[in-house]
Amino acid sequence: MALTPEQLREIEALRAEARPTRRATVAALEDILYQPLAVLDHGFVRVIDYMGDDGAVVQAARVSYGRGTRRVSEDQGLVNYLMRHRHTTPFEMCEIKFHVKLPIFVARQWIRHRTANVNEYSARYSILDKEFYVPAPDQLAAQSAANRQGRGESLSGAEAAHVLALLRGDAEQTYRHYVEMLNENEDGTALDPLRSGLARELARINLTLATYTQWYWKIDLLNLLHFLSLRADTHAQYEIRVYAEAMLEVLKRWVPMVHAAFMEYRMGGAALSRTAIAVVRRMLAGETVDQPGSGLGAREWRELMAVLGRDGR
Amino acid sequence: MALTPEQLREIEALRAEARPTRRATVAALEDILYQPLAVLDHGFVRVIDYMGDDGAVVQAARVSYGRGTRRVSEDQGLVNYLMRHRHTTPFEMCEIKFHVKLPIFVARQWIRHRTANVNEYSARYSILDKEFYVPAPDQLAAQSAANRQGRGESLSGAEAAHVLALLRGDAEQTYRHYVEMLNENEDGTALDPLRSGLARELARINLTLATYTQWYWKIDLLNLLHFLSLRADTHAQYEIRVYAEAMLEVLKRWVPMVHAAFMEYRMGGAALSRTAIAVVRRMLAGETVDQPGSGLGAREWRELMAVLGRDGR
Amino acid sequence: MALTPEQLREIEALRAEARPTRRATVAALEDILYQPLAVLDHGFVRVIDYMGDDGAVVQAARVSYGRGTRRVSEDQGLVNYLMRHRHTTPFEMCEIKFHVKLPIFVARQWIRHRTANVNEYSARYSILDKEFYVPAPDQLAAQSAANRQGRGESLSGAEAAHVLALLRGDAEQTYRHYVEMLNENEDGTALDPLRSGLARELARINLTLATYTQWYWKIDLLNLLHFLSLRADTHAQYEIRVYAEAMLEVLKRWVPMVHAAFMEYRMGGAALSRTAIAVVRRMLAGETVDQPGSGLGAREWRELMAVLGRDGR
Amino acid sequence: MALTPEQLREIEALRAEARPTRRATVAALEDILYQPLAVLDHGFVRVIDYMGDDGAVVQAARVSYGRGTRRVSEDQGLVNYLMRHRHTTPFEMCEIKFHVKLPIFVARQWIRHRTANVNEYSARYSILDKEFYVPAPDQLAAQSAANRQGRGESLSGAEAAHVLALLRGDAEQTYRHYVEMLNENEDGTALDPLRSGLARELARINLTLATYTQWYWKIDLLNLLHFLSLRADTHAQYEIRVYAEAMLEVLKRWVPMVHAAFMEYRMGGAALSRTAIAVVRRMLAGETVDQPGSGLGAREWRELMAVLGRDGR
Repeated sequence: MALTPEQLREIEALRAEARPTRRATVAALEDILYQPLAVLDHGFVRVIDYMGDDGAVVQAARVSYGRGTRRVSEDQGLVNYLMRHRHTTPFEMCEIKFHVKLPIFVARQWIRHRTANVNEYSARYSILDKEFYVPAPDQLAAQSAANRQGRGESLSGAEAAHVLALLRGDAEQTYRHYVEMLNENEDGTALDPLRSGLARELARINLTLATYTQWYWKIDLLNLLHFLSLRADTHAQYEIRVYAEAMLEVLKRWVPMVHAAFMEYRMGGAALSRTAIAVVRRMLAGETVDQPGSGLGAREWRELMAVLGRDGR
Repeated sequence: MALTPEQLREIEALRAEARPTRRATVAALEDILYQPLAVLDHGFVRVIDYMGDDGAVVQAARVSYGRGTRRVSEDQGLVNYLMRHRHTTPFEMCEIKFHVKLPIFVARQWIRHRTANVNEYSARYSILDKEFYVPAPDQLAAQSAANRQGRGESLSGAEAAHVLALLRGDAEQTYRHYVEMLNENEDGTALDPLRSGLARELARINLTLATYTQWYWKIDLLNLLHFLSLRADTHAQYEIRVYAEAMLEVLKRWVPMVHAAFMEYRMGGAALSRTAIAVVRRMLAGETVDQPGSGLGAREWRELMAVLGRDGR
Repeated sequence: MALTPEQLREIEALRAEARPTRRATVAALEDILYQPLAVLDHGFVRVIDYMGDDGAVVQAARVSYGRGTRRVSEDQGLVNYLMRHRHTTPFEMCEIKFHVKLPIFVARQWIRHRTANVNEYSARYSILDKEFYVPAPDQLAAQSAANRQGRGESLSGAEAAHVLALLRGDAEQTYRHYVEMLNENEDGTALDPLRSGLARELARINLTLATYTQWYWKIDLLNLLHFLSLRADTHAQYEIRVYAEAMLEVLKRWVPMVHAAFMEYRMGGAALSRTAIAVVRRMLAGETVDQPGSGLGAREWRELMAVLGRDGR
Repeated sequence: MALTPEQLREIEALRAEARPTRRATVAALEDILYQPLAVLDHGFVRVIDYMGDDGAVVQAARVSYGRGTRRVSEDQGLVNYLMRHRHTTPFEMCEIKFHVKLPIFVARQWIRHRTANVNEYSARYSILDKEFYVPAPDQLAAQSAANRQGRGESLSGAEAAHVLALLRGDAEQTYRHYVEMLNENEDGTALDPLRSGLARELARINLTLATYTQWYWKIDLLNLLHFLSLRADTHAQYEIRVYAEAMLEVLKRWVPMVHAAFMEYRMGGAALSRTAIAVVRRMLAGETVDQPGSGLGAREWRELMAVLGRDGR
C-alpha cells in the first residue's frame, strides 16, 4: 500500500478535524474514518463518509419522527425480522462511501454490481502509477478439477517461481513501454524531446489487468449486503473476497445489529429447494435417504449434505 | 402541518443534541436539520440526514485523497464544467434523506422517479390520520385550453365554493366511513363490540387521493437535480412543484456551488434543436425569419421565440 | 372487465395478423398475445410483447453464437444451476411487456418495484372511466389478529353487506362529483355551459383508491421473478396476488424451464438461518429440540416447524 | 473480425429460419439480424433480438389497446414532441439485444452505463482467444494539447512504427505467457504434463487491456439513446465511438422516427445556459458582444460561438 507522504499528510489532516453535527454518528466508524485498510499487496479500502446507523434502519421501518431507537433488544428483533422476511427498503436508508485501490481485473468483477455510484481515476486524463498485483506464492493455485470456475491445489515451488517471474516480468515490461510511449516525465516534460508521445487514452491499452486503479464507490446498505453476500462467499475469487472481508469488518463497526442479522440469516444461512425440504422431512421421519432416491442431482445432494453436516458421498 | 406535541418534542430532542464528526458537515443545513418546512395545507419536507457537500463533488471528480477543496473560484469553475458537460458521476457522491408528508396523488407522481430509496408509511399496517388536501381558493382553476395537461383561468367564486364543498364533503365522508369500517378507536378498542371491523388493507381503499401519506425519501444529488428540473418546472402540477421549490431552498443551503451551476445551466438554460440553431444563425446574419420559413412547427416556433425573448405570434 | 366493442375489435385485428420473424418465438405465448386475462372485477393482464425464450437464458449463460439449445435435459439442468446459485444475469436477457388494468391501491404497491418500465394512463390529461373495485363478499375479512399486516376471519353477512354498501356508495358518489366538477360530457361539451369546469389534474383527487387505472409495464425476466416471488406469496395482499398468479400462468407458457426452476427453488423453497440449520442438524442426530432450547424466537420456531412439516406449538 | 467457420454456420442457420409472430416486426432490422457488423480490427456488433418499433413508442404514449399507429406524420409529430419535452417513459417500451466483441479497455468505458443487462464471456471459466486491438496507423495520435482528455496530431511515421511494434510485441508476449502459465492445449490436454498449470482466473491477469472480450448487452431504447448521445459524440474516445456509430445505423433501421427525432433534438442540438441565452438576445438586438463583456468564461464563449457558427477567437 504505497501511499505517498503527502497523501498520508492529507489523510491525517482530515482525521485531526472534528465538527459538531446533529446527524446520527457512529463512534466506532469515526475511529477509522479516512484510514486505509490494507488489502492485497498494494490495495486498500478506506471509508470516506457514511449516512445513518442501526437506528436509521429501525426509524425508517417505523416511519417515525424521532431517532427511532427503543430498547436494544427490541431494535435487534426488528432488524432480524426485516432481514428474515426480506423487507429491503429500510436497509436502503443507510449509505457509505469508500475509496478503494484495486487491480483492474478485480475492478472488472466489482463493477458488475450496478447499484452503486462510482468515480474512477481516469487513465484517459492521468498517468497510472507503477503498481501491479503479484499474487503471494501461497495464492498460486492450479485450475480446480471439481469446479471449472475456481482454484485447486497450490503450484509446486518451481512452477510457482516460474509463474511469478512471468507475471512480474510482463508487468514491468508493459509498464516500461507505457511510459516510453507516453514519452513523459513525472513533471510533464518529454523524455525524448524529438518525439510527440502517444495519447494517454491509447498508451494505457498496453498495461495488463494486474495494474492497480482506484475509485470512489458509494452504495446503500442493502446493496452493500448483496455485494458482500456474493463477494465474501467462498466461491468468489480470492482477490475480490479479501476486499469483501475488509468491508465486513467495516460493516461490524458501522451497523453492528445489521451485521449480526446478516451473519445469521445470509452468510450463515442456506436456501433449500422444494425437493430438498422433502428430503429433510423424510430423514426427520426416520427414513434413510440416498442420492438416487432423493430426487436431487448429484451436486445438489452434496450441497444439501454439506448444509446438514453429513457426508455427501 | 399538524404535528402532534409529542412529535415536536421528538424533533426538538434531536435538534438539541450534537456530536463531533470527522465527516464533511454543512452548517447552513445543520441549522434546519429535522425541522419541518411547511408545504400545502398539511404537508412538509424535512431533512433527516445528508452525506457530502460541494467539496465532495470536487473531490470525487479529482479522485483525491484529501478534502479536495482548493480556492473557491477553482472549485466553482470545476462544478460548472461538470454540470455543463453532463459529467454526472461526481454529483452522485452526495446523498440526502428527507421525511415528506404529501397527498397521495402527489406521491403517485413523485414515485415515478425510480432512482431513490423510499420507505412509506403502511396503511396495511397502520391507520391513516384524518388529513386531506383541500386546494386554496386561488388554486382552483379550469382545465387549460392551450395545454391538455394543465390549468387555465381560476374558477369563479360560486363555482369555486361549490367545488370546495364537494372536495371537503367527500373527503370527510369517505374518512368517516373508513373509520366506521375499521371499527377501531384510537386506543385499539372496538367502536362497536358486536362487529369485527374490516381489515386495514381493505378499508383504506375507501379513502380519496387527497389523503395525506408520508415517507422517508433518500436520493443522490444527481438524481435530486433531475427530479427538481422536472418538478420545479412550470409545466409540473402546482401541488408537486411547491415541494420541489422547498427542496430547491434546501439545495441552496446544502451545496451552494452546485445550486448556482444548476440554476445557470439547467433551470435557466434551454435546449435548441438542430433546426432551431439554424434559425438563430440566420437571424444573427440579419435575415428576417418567420415560422413558415423556419422549418419549425408552430409550437416549436413559439417555444424558440420565448427563449429568445421575442414575440412568437 | 369492461372492454368496449371497439377495444375488442382492435385486439382481434392485432391477433389476426402474423408476420415472419427470425427472432426466437414461443408458440404457447403467441396463442394468448394481446388477449386480456381477467383479474378482479374489472381488471386484466394482457401480454403485449416479449423478447427471448428459455433458449435465450441458456444462450446468454454460454455467450454462444447460435441459438444455444442443446438437449432439453441439459438446458433444464443449466437453468436449474443458474437459479440455484443465483446467477442472475442470464435471466435478464428476456423481457416481457404487459398492459394491466388495476385499482389504484394495487398500483401503489406494484410501483414499489422500481426495476421496470411503466407508462401509466394520465388522469392529468384524460378522464378516468367509472370503474372501481368492490371486493367479492368472501374477500371481506377482518384484521388479522396474528399478523398486523393481513386478514383474518371473514365478516359476518350483515357487517359485510354494510361494508359493501359503504364502499360502493362512496365510490359512486365521489365519481359523480368528479364528473360534476369536471363539468364535461363524454364528447367534450360542458354539462353546464355556465360553469368552467375544474382542471382534470385537480378533479381526480376526489376519486378513491378503489378506482381503476391502467398502464403498460415492461420488465426483464429476472425482475419479474423477483416481483412474483413477493407478490404471489401468501403474505401478499389478495388483490395484488391474483395479478401475480395470472402472470405465473403467463410465465409457464413463455419460459417453461425457467418456470419449473422457479417453482422448485423459489416459490417452493425456504431459507434457513444459521441457528435453524443447527436445529435441523441436532434433530437429525436424534436429539429432541424444543423452542426454548433451540436458540430461535417463538415466531422463527413456528416458521421452521412449518417448513419441516411439524407441529410448531 | 475472426469468426470461425462453425460460428458463421451457426449464424447462417439462424438467419435461414423464420417463424410467424403476432408481435410488431421491423423488416429492415430483420434483414441484418444476427449478422456481425465489423468494428475495429477484430470487433463486431450484431443484433440478437429486439422488442417493439416506432409504433410501440406511440402506443405507450397513448396507452392504447391497438397498435397505436395513425398517420405517419401524426406519429412523427408525437415522437418529436416526446423527444423535445423529454417525456422519457415511452422510449423505455422498446428493447434491443446486441452481441458485441470489443477490447477490454473499451468494455471498461462501456460498462459505466449501468442501466443495461450484460452477460460477459468469463475468463475465470474459459480461455480467451488470441485477439487484441492494434490501432490503425492513422489512429496513433499524440496527447491533445487543448484537451487533457483526448488526442491531438498524428504521430510521425517513425514514432508510430515504434509504438505499433511495442503494442504488438507486448500483446503477443503476454498472451504467449498466458498460455504457458495455463499449460493447456486447445483440446484441454497439458502442454507440459509435469506442470499443473495456473488457474484461469489468475493467468488472465497477465493479458493487456487491448485483449478482446465479448458480451451480450441488452438495453431499452431510452438508455440506448443516452449511451449513443455520449459515445457517438466527438468527445468520446475513437475506439468506443465507432461502436456507437455502428449502433446508430442499427437505430435508423429499427426505429426510423425515433432516429430522426434523436438526430434533430439530441445529436444535432445544443444546450444554452442562462447567460448564453442572454448573450444571444443581446446579439439579436444588434449589440456587439465580446467574450469579456459576455459574462461567459473563455471556453464557454468558444463553445457558444461554435454553436452559433461564428468565430470564437
